[in-house]
Amino acid sequence: MSNKVLSIENAIDLVTGILENHKTSTVNARLVARALVAAEVEGQKGHGLSRVASYSAQSKSGKVDGFAKPEVTEVADAAIRVDARHGFAFPAFDLATAELTKLTPKTGIGVAAIHNSHHCGTLGYHAEKLARQGLMALVFSNSPKAMAPWGGKSAVFGTNPIAFAAPRKAKNPLVIDLSLSKVARGKVKVAYEKGESIPEGWALDAEGRATTDAGAAMDGTMLPMGDAKGATLVLMVEILSAALTSSHFGFEASSFFAAEGPAPDIGQLIIAIAPGPLSANAYFERIETLLSAVLEQDGTRLPGSKKKEMWDSAHHSGIEVDEKMYESLMTLKRQVQ
Amino acid sequence: MSNKVLSIENAIDLVTGILENHKTSTVNARLVARALVAAEVEGQKGHGLSRVASYSAQSKSGKVDGFAKPEVTEVADAAIRVDARHGFAFPAFDLATAELTKLTPKTGIGVAAIHNSHHCGTLGYHAEKLARQGLMALVFSNSPKAMAPWGGKSAVFGTNPIAFAAPRKAKNPLVIDLSLSKVARGKVKVAYEKGESIPEGWALDAEGRATTDAGAAMDGTMLPMGDAKGATLVLMVEILSAALTSSHFGFEASSFFAAEGPAPDIGQLIIAIAPGPLSANAYFERIETLLSAVLEQDGTRLPGSKKKEMWDSAHHSGIEVDEKMYESLMTLKRQVQ
Repeated sequence: MSNKVLSIENAIDLVTGILENHKTSTVNARLVARALVAAEVEGQKGHGLSRVASYSAQSKSGKVDGFAKPEVTEVADAAIRVDARHGFAFPAFDLATAELTKLTPKTGIGVAAIHNSHHCGTLGYHAEKLARQGLMALVFSNSPKAMAPWGGKSAVFGTNPIAFAAPRKAKNPLVIDLSLSKVARGKVKVAYEKGESIPEGWALDAEGRATTDAGAAMDGTMLPMGDAKGATLVLMVEILSAALTSSHFGFEASSFFAAEGPAPDIGQLIIAIAPGPLSANAYFERIETLLSAVLEQDGTRLPGSKKKEMWDSAHHSGIEVDEKMYESLMTLKRQVQ
Repeated sequence: MSNKVLSIENAIDLVTGILENHKTSTVNARLVARALVAAEVEGQKGHGLSRVASYSAQSKSGKVDGFAKPEVTEVADAAIRVDARHGFAFPAFDLATAELTKLTPKTGIGVAAIHNSHHCGTLGYHAEKLARQGLMALVFSNSPKAMAPWGGKSAVFGTNPIAFAAPRKAKNPLVIDLSLSKVARGKVKVAYEKGESIPEGWALDAEGRATTDAGAAMDGTMLPMGDAKGATLVLMVEILSAALTSSHFGFEASSFFAAEGPAPDIGQLIIAIAPGPLSANAYFERIETLLSAVLEQDGTRLPGSKKKEMWDSAHHSGIEVDEKMYESLMTLKRQVQ
């Protein structure tokens, strides 16, 4: 077995072609492909090429409407609702980002409620796009149930990520992106498959008891980062991304992976802020003062600071794909609807 | 020694009188007094009557301008800047809350950047006020330096609280309020004074090493809740509350306690959202569905759910104040400017 190397453009074309082969419009396929390839480049493999098989199975089955055209409704001067129409999330984010970019310079702040939506990859991807337009962005998403309310034992909430991006003058934006579980569920799965135990504090068993047994954790729930404090943030994100957008909660949503069943129809909330007026035009100078104070200390780095290197490497040397993944993508490419 | 009991109104009158005696206007004194007494009622003693002595010393010395009238400037259709003018934070929050309450039903979302500001008590107090007007609220504040950047050893950031409040139909709002340090610095101080050690994970020493020595921790920095993930939220809150409002960062701000020196001039950011239009009017029903799913599990409760009981108790039986605190308040009351 030897790994294959794809250029960024070839990888995007390959994923686009696979999705087109699985009941997805070209425009939607390309938006999905760009996001998945970006996650792959940035080392977020759980949101990268590993998703192509389940994405294409879901569009083939009709669980996801690959032809959906998202719709925007202006519901107040600075607020829009974006209906993803049971399609992939990326076309809805693309529309929301374009609308917020138009709206926010006039209003100072704008909000988009995305509903009837699905897995949106790395949340920071969307926040960064707004920051590249000079806006500060906060993005929230819910996801299928994985975490119990604090003190409880049954999963209600997703791992509910938060992303934040802050624009900088003549520099790449600062991008923060964290899910609110202590670790990703994928880490428990890996330990389970290897027959290893997990550290205490990662997960609870089905009875709500702390466990180091990966199998028991797979049947149980993930613990929030920051324990009881973090649990309040999990609730906050569920409210912002699902109650406020009128979407399915984690405990109501279908899987992001399985090909059958109804669409997950979860929600996302985007808040975009124009930093100029709010800071009396001091923002771009102020943020550099802060980030310099961080970086002058040994041992520190900024969130997302390794991204540039990863992109440079991918542009220069391509994306390495292991042979098993490559064969799976080739099989999907050859499938005819 | 025996504790004294004050009615809520008497406590507010007492604190108002003390501040009036210490170069503070009646209107400002009353706004401060209401907030400090509310924190005392809700068991947040670190933001309650314990602050009266340092507040009055700061207004007496002129570090805080007790007569400051905050000023509002509309900088975009949905964005305002509120200048606290080196006064107490509460008058600025009062003005910002009133303006956002007028603005947000039309715009769907509104933002207020408070600058030249000071300690604002429990952040949830302000979020809850907006929620009582039917708005969802997110509030961020920075504070004088207490936490190092992740990997570093010198304090740059404050403990940087986040508050969130969500309105409910015919019920008290849900209120979330957390500072981003694992524990309050006050807990380290208590351990130090008792000669006790502290658990690992609370703090670092001045060299950035983990410590269980409370004295070494007092010379060092507090650790964030959620460790590396939480550290990214600390940075986010510093940017939102200070870079975006053009305020002093934690490492630039003077103490919230000492009577001498310049004003801290930190910042706060308030985001208010009208949940009706954004949710196609489904919000009030959706949030009840979510909170019911939480509460149907044994062992769970909602953040802030004990507040009502505390207020009922204070209305019925008054606020218990220990004799030493009471004597200190009486001494402050008798002082003439």
